[in-house]
Amino acid sequence: MVSKIAEKSKVTRVISFAAGDPDPDVIPRALYANLAKRVFEEERKSVTYSPTEGIPELREEITRFMGMYEGVEASPSDIIVTVGGSQALDLIGKLMMDPGDIVIVENPSYVNTLLVWKPYGVRLIGIPMDENGMDTHLLESKLRELKADGKFPKLIYTIPTGQNPTGITMSLDRRKHLYEIASQYDLLIVEDGAYNQLVYEQVEVKSIKSMDVEGRVIFVGSFSKVLGTGLRVGWLHLPRELVDVFKATKGPADMCAPVPSQLIVYRILREGLFKEIKENAIKAYKEKRDLMLDAIDKYLHVIKHTHPVAGMFIFLWLPEHIDGWRLAEEVLEKKAVATIPGAPFYTDQTGRNTLRLNFSMAPRDLIDRGVRDLSEFIK
Amino acid sequence: MVSKIAEKSKVTRVISFAAGDPDPDVIPRALYANLAKRVFEEERKSVTYSPTEGIPELREEITRFMGMYEGVEASPSDIIVTVGGSQALDLIGKLMMDPGDIVIVENPSYVNTLLVWKPYGVRLIGIPMDENGMDTHLLESKLRELKADGKFPKLIYTIPTGQNPTGITMSLDRRKHLYEIASQYDLLIVEDGAYNQLVYEQVEVKSIKSMDVEGRVIFVGSFSKVLGTGLRVGWLHLPRELVDVFKATKGPADMCAPVPSQLIVYRILREGLFKEIKENAIKAYKEKRDLMLDAIDKYLHVIKHTHPVAGMFIFLWLPEHIDGWRLAEEVLEKKAVATIPGAPFYTDQTGRNTLRLNFSMAPRDLIDRGVRDLSEFIK
Repeated sequence: MVSKIAEKSKVTRVISFAAGDPDPDVIPRALYANLAKRVFEEERKSVTYSPTEGIPELREEITRFMGMYEGVEASPSDIIVTVGGSQALDLIGKLMMDPGDIVIVENPSYVNTLLVWKPYGVRLIGIPMDENGMDTHLLESKLRELKADGKFPKLIYTIPTGQNPTGITMSLDRRKHLYEIASQYDLLIVEDGAYNQLVYEQVEVKSIKSMDVEGRVIFVGSFSKVLGTGLRVGWLHLPRELVDVFKATKGPADMCAPVPSQLIVYRILREGLFKEIKENAIKAYKEKRDLMLDAIDKYLHVIKHTHPVAGMFIFLWLPEHIDGWRLAEEVLEKKAVATIPGAPFYTDQTGRNTLRLNFSMAPRDLIDRGVRDLSEFIK
Repeated sequence: MVSKIAEKSKVTRVISFAAGDPDPDVIPRALYANLAKRVFEEERKSVTYSPTEGIPELREEITRFMGMYEGVEASPSDIIVTVGGSQALDLIGKLMMDPGDIVIVENPSYVNTLLVWKPYGVRLIGIPMDENGMDTHLLESKLRELKADGKFPKLIYTIPTGQNPTGITMSLDRRKHLYEIASQYDLLIVEDGAYNQLVYEQVEVKSIKSMDVEGRVIFVGSFSKVLGTGLRVGWLHLPRELVDVFKATKGPADMCAPVPSQLIVYRILREGLFKEIKENAIKAYKEKRDLMLDAIDKYLHVIKHTHPVAGMFIFLWLPEHIDGWRLAEEVLEKKAVATIPGAPFYTDQTGRNTLRLNFSMAPRDLIDRGVRDLSEFIK
């Protein structure tokens, strides 16, 4: 259903608040056209397999990127280039999860991570969030309770910045607390940094990976949200001892991430173009976020909604009697406005009356109208 | 080890008979440069997710391709575009294989398929091959034996044309027999058509999928061997009732195959350019194959070797006392010639004295020297 809405929303004239895509008109496609041309003209290797962990020069640039943008001292040998962040998350499931394993996630959390991990037979435990992110005190009690029961989770998954689906950004204190708890219980953290580069306000955050002195954080990186999702280039920054097993698992599964895409991203990084692309994206999406927040305040009767300082999403708690699934279907059918129900993002069958709105993709001048159209179904 | 050799072989000056790549100088990179430029300039969707099953217009072109090149009447709704054939094979494992399942493969068979399926806990049974491909009479006795034991395999995997690693092409009679047997025992066939487009002689073959009147053949297609492995575009042609479960499994695992690559392949197909690219590839690799066969006859003292009419590989049975692993290591180290030991392609720990040589990638004028250098280690 979620993917059906996302697809239908790409049909002409639908106002899409559905997919988690950047705006294709904000992405400098003319630059990519030129880079892609040069990549094929100049690089014989553009048409052959790369090493499964990615082309070496891209892994070096990602290492620099981790230093510059995430405050993490990395080594190229700890970086594995993946088919977007999605493949990184799939590999984590494939390699690390066994039936019966307990995995801690935010509640709600990214639906595709839940879907890709569930088939491995894991038990997902969702920790409630507030405006500062995952409630780490509740996490602590949950871990204490599990421990008393002789149970230890496999890992804790978090999207600390501009979380999907809520748009919430975890405070620095919470991040520190989360790391302390993980350390105390000797747990791995999977930090999904997909939205780390799209921060619209002066907030004091840093990646959890940058606090990682014990090698317990797996960082999942993605260029999708700034450079475009179509390229399919993400990466894993792994604790050293996990690198070889990840490479061995990844190799036969995909051979390598798409090489022309790897080379385009490499040139963007090497030629220092990322910063400008990112700044343009922030400028555009901040404006769109504000337009959407204004429209929500103007038109929507909701219980509450998030006020994201980062990412691409605003999350709505609708009046109790409204079902997000039905609402999303109706508003798509009758008003051609695409939204995503919040329920599938929950681990515990709650969130029936929630809705996720994406503000990055729709054209600026349609945001107000889309939210107004939506309001007719929320009474 | 295999991937280590493949990587090292890309370093300058190594003569590579290792990787299964086409020759980057045979692939029309100037054309790709131009297509890629236009794709980014003209297509907003080049930078966004595509539907997980691939962009609709590419799936239509692949449908036409299946008709024109594989003799298969397909419908776009049965096609799922994947990250190369590799992801297609991984998805088959992920979706269809449970611990204890029996999977029938050729012996030897493609090492990465074995590696990607093994973690699902399957028991691989290898059926010996001769110059006509998998020995279907031996397959029949094996199935009879298993049945007597109350056991039914999950599927039969075959690479019927230019098989990896042997280069052997299954005869038409054997293909028909294989399909009959699968029908009799009600088994699925996974047909890996990676090398179907690289046929160098007038041989009477057709895809097993083209005989499939009962919906029991999963066809794994790939553009890698003609258009280049770097693009990472392959596809699944599925029996109708499997399409939805494959889409549901694929969605969260990778979102979609790389979109610029999908659009480049689409334009190659739509503009009728595939045929010429394929014919150039056949001309180039046929010549290289002949150069390698000549050199083998001139220099190598082997028990036997294959005479491929298709694909990219010649398979060698070395004198009994020679270990393919050690040979591959030595010849790489001392002569900078990269080869792949045959043993990991076997399901039963045999094939110690075998070696796989790729003839498509090395420059023409180095093939003779590479084989001569190799000969010094085979005495």
